Amino acid sequence: MSASLHNRGMRGFASDNYAGAHPEIIEAIRSANGGHVVAYGEDEYTERLQEVIKEHFGPSAAAFPVFNGTGANVLSLQTLLPRWGAVVCADTAHINTDENAAPERVAGIKLLPVATTDGKLTRELIDREAWGWGDEHRAQPLAVSITQTTEVGTCYTPEEVRRIAEHVHSLGMKLHMDGARLANAAAHLGVPFKAFTTDAGVDVLSFGGTKNGLLYGEAVIVLDPETGAGMKHLRKMDMQLASKMRFVSAQLIALLESDLWLRSAAHANEMASRLRRGVEAIDGVRLTRPTQSNGVFASLPSEAADIVRRAFRFYDWDRASGEVRWMCSFDTTEADVDGLVSAVKEAAAEVNTPFSVETAGRL
Amino acid sequence: MSASLHNRGMRGFASDNYAGAHPEIIEAIRSANGGHVVAYGEDEYTERLQEVIKEHFGPSAAAFPVFNGTGANVLSLQTLLPRWGAVVCADTAHINTDENAAPERVAGIKLLPVATTDGKLTRELIDREAWGWGDEHRAQPLAVSITQTTEVGTCYTPEEVRRIAEHVHSLGMKLHMDGARLANAAAHLGVPFKAFTTDAGVDVLSFGGTKNGLLYGEAVIVLDPETGAGMKHLRKMDMQLASKMRFVSAQLIALLESDLWLRSAAHANEMASRLRRGVEAIDGVRLTRPTQSNGVFASLPSEAADIVRRAFRFYDWDRASGEVRWMCSFDTTEADVDGLVSAVKEAAAEVNTPFSVETAGRL
Amino acid sequence: MSASLHNRGMRGFASDNYAGAHPEIIEAIRSANGGHVVAYGEDEYTERLQEVIKEHFGPSAAAFPVFNGTGANVLSLQTLLPRWGAVVCADTAHINTDENAAPERVAGIKLLPVATTDGKLTRELIDREAWGWGDEHRAQPLAVSITQTTEVGTCYTPEEVRRIAEHVHSLGMKLHMDGARLANAAAHLGVPFKAFTTDAGVDVLSFGGTKNGLLYGEAVIVLDPETGAGMKHLRKMDMQLASKMRFVSAQLIALLESDLWLRSAAHANEMASRLRRGVEAIDGVRLTRPTQSNGVFASLPSEAADIVRRAFRFYDWDRASGEVRWMCSFDTTEADVDGLVSAVKEAAAEVNTPFSVETAGRL
Amino acid sequence: MSASLHNRGMRGFASDNYAGAHPEIIEAIRSANGGHVVAYGEDEYTERLQEVIKEHFGPSAAAFPVFNGTGANVLSLQTLLPRWGAVVCADTAHINTDENAAPERVAGIKLLPVATTDGKLTRELIDREAWGWGDEHRAQPLAVSITQTTEVGTCYTPEEVRRIAEHVHSLGMKLHMDGARLANAAAHLGVPFKAFTTDAGVDVLSFGGTKNGLLYGEAVIVLDPETGAGMKHLRKMDMQLASKMRFVSAQLIALLESDLWLRSAAHANEMASRLRRGVEAIDGVRLTRPTQSNGVFASLPSEAADIVRRAFRFYDWDRASGEVRWMCSFDTTEADVDGLVSAVKEAAAEVNTPFSVETAGRL
Repeated sequence: MSASLHNRGMRGFASDNYAGAHPEIIEAIRSANGGHVVAYGEDEYTERLQEVIKEHFGPSAAAFPVFNGTGANVLSLQTLLPRWGAVVCADTAHINTDENAAPERVAGIKLLPVATTDGKLTRELIDREAWGWGDEHRAQPLAVSITQTTEVGTCYTPEEVRRIAEHVHSLGMKLHMDGARLANAAAHLGVPFKAFTTDAGVDVLSFGGTKNGLLYGEAVIVLDPETGAGMKHLRKMDMQLASKMRFVSAQLIALLESDLWLRSAAHANEMASRLRRGVEAIDGVRLTRPTQSNGVFASLPSEAADIVRRAFRFYDWDRASGEVRWMCSFDTTEADVDGLVSAVKEAAAEVNTPFSVETAGRL
Repeated sequence: MSASLHNRGMRGFASDNYAGAHPEIIEAIRSANGGHVVAYGEDEYTERLQEVIKEHFGPSAAAFPVFNGTGANVLSLQTLLPRWGAVVCADTAHINTDENAAPERVAGIKLLPVATTDGKLTRELIDREAWGWGDEHRAQPLAVSITQTTEVGTCYTPEEVRRIAEHVHSLGMKLHMDGARLANAAAHLGVPFKAFTTDAGVDVLSFGGTKNGLLYGEAVIVLDPETGAGMKHLRKMDMQLASKMRFVSAQLIALLESDLWLRSAAHANEMASRLRRGVEAIDGVRLTRPTQSNGVFASLPSEAADIVRRAFRFYDWDRASGEVRWMCSFDTTEADVDGLVSAVKEAAAEVNTPFSVETAGRL
Repeated sequence: MSASLHNRGMRGFASDNYAGAHPEIIEAIRSANGGHVVAYGEDEYTERLQEVIKEHFGPSAAAFPVFNGTGANVLSLQTLLPRWGAVVCADTAHINTDENAAPERVAGIKLLPVATTDGKLTRELIDREAWGWGDEHRAQPLAVSITQTTEVGTCYTPEEVRRIAEHVHSLGMKLHMDGARLANAAAHLGVPFKAFTTDAGVDVLSFGGTKNGLLYGEAVIVLDPETGAGMKHLRKMDMQLASKMRFVSAQLIALLESDLWLRSAAHANEMASRLRRGVEAIDGVRLTRPTQSNGVFASLPSEAADIVRRAFRFYDWDRASGEVRWMCSFDTTEADVDGLVSAVKEAAAEVNTPFSVETAGRL
Repeated sequence: MSASLHNRGMRGFASDNYAGAHPEIIEAIRSANGGHVVAYGEDEYTERLQEVIKEHFGPSAAAFPVFNGTGANVLSLQTLLPRWGAVVCADTAHINTDENAAPERVAGIKLLPVATTDGKLTRELIDREAWGWGDEHRAQPLAVSITQTTEVGTCYTPEEVRRIAEHVHSLGMKLHMDGARLANAAAHLGVPFKAFTTDAGVDVLSFGGTKNGLLYGEAVIVLDPETGAGMKHLRKMDMQLASKMRFVSAQLIALLESDLWLRSAAHANEMASRLRRGVEAIDGVRLTRPTQSNGVFASLPSEAADIVRRAFRFYDWDRASGEVRWMCSFDTTEADVDGLVSAVKEAAAEVNTPFSVETAGRL
């Protein structure tokens, strides 16, 4: 008998990747188990997944299940670009900061990062790097990658995506969306996925499953039937082809066939909103970003943050400025949030008192 | 509720990847679920896995869980080689024939394949490509990769591995073992893993989990503490770093902490032996390889093979010569085997009779 | 008989690459011609080159002749870095803007560009990207690349290089210098190469020959004997190994054995100074950068620039701000410079007068 | 004044790369020198080169000058293949044996080598590796590369190339020719280049200049206007873009505008024929390959070979079997050949006599 080695009742605010899998996902895996099916994607689950994806993303959509988000992003960009291509992205983009240069190393893609105020690209920001076509000295900017929701918790409206897509296409470029938290965006916007992907002009999408409660598994979704050349070959050579693919597909079906994706994402978003409401009135805490999905960004004295950490795990976003990130997930409870709020309140009070060590030191 | 989309009672002989996951593996995942743990490998399961691995492979062994076998192989070779390295392998090696050039494309590694009679390298065969050090025109042969059990179902003895390792090391090269079916080898040899890996001189090992009954998941096991530089960075940049790594580790623990690995592998091997015994006396069927693990290779008239395929799925190994491959897995039953034997018997009889269509056509 | 297809008397200010080869270089090639010598670098010229390089760069220096500057840079960085390395550089660095992502594509190296005011890195600027060691999500910053003279014509003093090198080394990183215009820097500083390379702590240097009057040819110079692993293998696999290497080496010998390198660079620098003096008093022309080598950067009305272009070729540096770049080379004459100054003066006057065509057109 | 560091009167039979440059080539460089022209290929020489190339290869041909043969080959294959492509070639092909895996490492291309008897592929040999399209596990064979003349001195007839091209194209693949010694082939066949390239169905050609008497420089020639996508971007990112391209182009013009290419190649071939005639009657010497270009392959006792080496440099082709390679070049003289023949004769006699030192030593 397998024993749990961890405290199953312990939850924190570090990352939606710290959570496990939703029980319905485990159930889906169990249902897909037993017997033999063809490996590498020619199974009934991967076939059914295509239908489910078309229901969400339109009749031209095609899904390619992969293992993880970095894999989905690199494959997406690789299928959009010739060997000499480059990608305009926000400098905060996960592909630029958190993938150990996998786009550059595995796919030979140069990133052209642009500074933003809120993690979101605009036509004007894209234009800072979208130039120089035909000049062989410059890596050719032939795609733009946007993240939905962004790494700083903001969300593009369908209209914003549409304007970007029109601009990108008018320049002869392609549009990729890193949707590691796509469900959180849809839940926040209150619209179907299609409204801000297929209908807005996105060409290829990295659809995130893991942060939405899967054990593992994401999908590259090719939305523009003109693109996606060689996807099956690229997926294999990039080491993202699961032999027992039925289990990735079964999880994605469970997520998307019912409203599991929405329930989980809406709940995580709601917990973030509750958290925001709880901390915004606390003296010494300043909310640094809009809360448009499942993360709350705030600055507070680092001593206060360290006190809170005794009870709850979370990350500094920018240690220099004292900005921290609190992430909620599908299994975050109201009690978890209220507990964090209380802890912040107490810690803030502790460090704000004139007799605190820190303040005393300055006198 | 998730519904099964496939016939859970249907099994064939196409691949050990067609099987699902062992129920104990599903149970291990369930036990590892719930609550929050640190992502990317700093969790209790991955920590425990290190102990389990050391029990099997010795105190210097270090395990790096990854998603799939191609990932394990490419990472293993990449950590053993400088940028200018090349790898001597059998021409039938999975890395050479079935990984869509991932070693070349992702890691820039040239393979130097050598023809073999039985899928196994020897000192003499290695020497055919192990030369030319210092010559900048030649990709430098700095590692050898052997597969245990091989792609044609044969198995290196501990002594054979030891002789290869000594030779390889005496040439200043490193030894990699692709152990996609390592458990089948241990079961066949009746020795612990350590006997033909660590103790025999293997430097880095791809340890296979998926074909031994996991949902997904393999591990690179670094056996020589002098090697393995940068593994954690390589794993991330090669897109093989699982965020919810606890689930890969929990499966590997379940496999290796108990005797699950051995029960499953020994059973699969035994089913292959039973199959061999069943078909070897059939007129028109010729066994083409020794049966030293869970696969049986045989040649039979292609019309007979096609008749058998109406009931059981399996692959041609070499269509030209009429050689087929029948693979058994942890869930293959005696009834499955006996059913296949009967089907082969009937088909062989059918095509051998003088009144068969095919024969008639030749008259 | 070969005929000249171009006007051999026409010179401009576009680039030091527009110039041809110095006659002494042609003579060196002629002397190295005839008879047979061993190919690929085991010839008398490449052997002699090593001595010449040691005279300039110290007894540990080793030279690896290559074809072009991009090749020299990629090789230099590749030999300094493991597969997971990244390089901090100025955002204006040639490797970042003008090499079509060769570092990323050929060597899998991520660049971490930093904005500067004058093309020069400092300890503080390096620190903006030099962090995150051990974090597998971040491409590991393990080298810094500085350009001497920079792409905007500025020059690091020996002391500035030394301070950077100390900082870089204290962080466990390596220092690369892109010396495409190294001779211009030495001429400007009035010190030997060694003073701001070997003695200042540079580990690997791209030594520029082409812009200093060679037909073709640069060299990677490994200054730190601890680095440079595998250079000969890397050079071949990166397609930078010349079969008839004697001719690259003979050119470099001719450049460095006599004072040809200094005569040519000092002359080019002096022509740039003369140009600066000539244009700085012109109304409507503003010098935008210090003149510390062979380039002059200035802003003037774009209509004026277009008028000057009827007689002299040169590039916009920043079309938006009206900044242009005028480059001098070993063969630029005083008359060339004076001609350009006159042309600028006339054009500036023309566009400044109320009756200029441009102004008239607006009335 | 540059001094010669080598013996200009010494010539051997090691390689056509050991020779220097033809005097007419030096003259062409001198004529192209002086004044300023646009860098990176927008010069009068590169423009004129296009016309010269069209005269030789037809109106659709386009030439891309590069630095060396490995560069030409990698670029050629890269422009023909998607990221998932593989190339069928002879196992003796230069791309497979002598380029330190540059095709694999720089371009991510897998080679699928086939054993041949004479260095030449045929339809049947190609078919050994040309299969498996659509199977994502297999690197997709989408191009074939043949060498003209081959690495063992044999030559494809126009008809042989045509049959290969038809076959390759009927399979949906592309045909590359590595023409490092293309001029020797044309001289041997007595037909224009076009007869066995453009007219025979070659899609992209590596045209060799260095072995035909250039200082340096080759060209990728795109013959099929449907191919060659992105060549200018690929050339830059692969570090094969010469800044002072006029000098590469001027050399190629000098070679191809007059009959210099033919004079040099025909002479080298004739010297090889003379050598063959001289050694074929010598007792103990056996010619191992047809002599269809500028190389002679023979086996002789290794002691005899070592004696000959005291006077003339040349390479073992296969030390095990005693096969050596003698290469002639544009500057090989009749006296050189006759001297080698005499030396071989004497050495063969010496080792064959019972009183030879070597034999005596064994008594």
